Amino acid sequence: MALLRRELGDVLRERRRAQGRTLREVSASASVSLGYLSEVERGEKEASSELLASICGALELPLSQVLIDVSCRMAESEGLAPTVVLPVPAEDVVAASAA
Amino acid sequence: MALLRRELGDVLRERRRAQGRTLREVSASASVSLGYLSEVERGEKEASSELLASICGALELPLSQVLIDVSCRMAESEGLAPTVVLPVPAEDVVAASAA
Repeated sequence: MALLRRELGDVLRERRRAQGRTLREVSASASVSLGYLSEVERGEKEASSELLASICGALELPLSQVLIDVSCRMAESEGLAPTVVLPVPAEDVVAASAA
Repeated sequence: MALLRRELGDVLRERRRAQGRTLREVSASASVSLGYLSEVERGEKEASSELLASICGALELPLSQVLIDVSCRMAESEGLAPTVVLPVPAEDVVAASAA
């Protein structure tokens, strides 16, 4: 069974590594202990909502984007077709709201 | 600050109500206590990954879909443009893999 904390941990680690940053740097920036961040990345600990927000802040990633990445990985684990996520340009959103 | 557990709770409650099911029915089906499910829906308790999987199973919802719903709500809270999620028909995925 795919577990949220494992997929979430994988996404956070991949994003951190893609930025070329160490556990030490990100944990300091997020004000969480290095051990805690390491456990979260390995899917061994459930991140509280507050600390997850801090970690995403340290990685300069919106939590919504992290969740979409996690969702795509989950969909694969669940044997569902992957989803395609298209950002909507802001002007279209404004136009749609005004319509 | 938008918190994952609050958005997640809102999504789970909306989905349960859309199915016309009670807290009692879903908690029994998910093998979690009614009080726990109620706290999760109100965003007062962090759901563990295992119990979240049970709740989604009881609602017959893939966790990936729940996370997409949560992500869309988060994006709104973050002031980001909402995302459009398009499921890819399975035959297209097979064709793309074979190509």
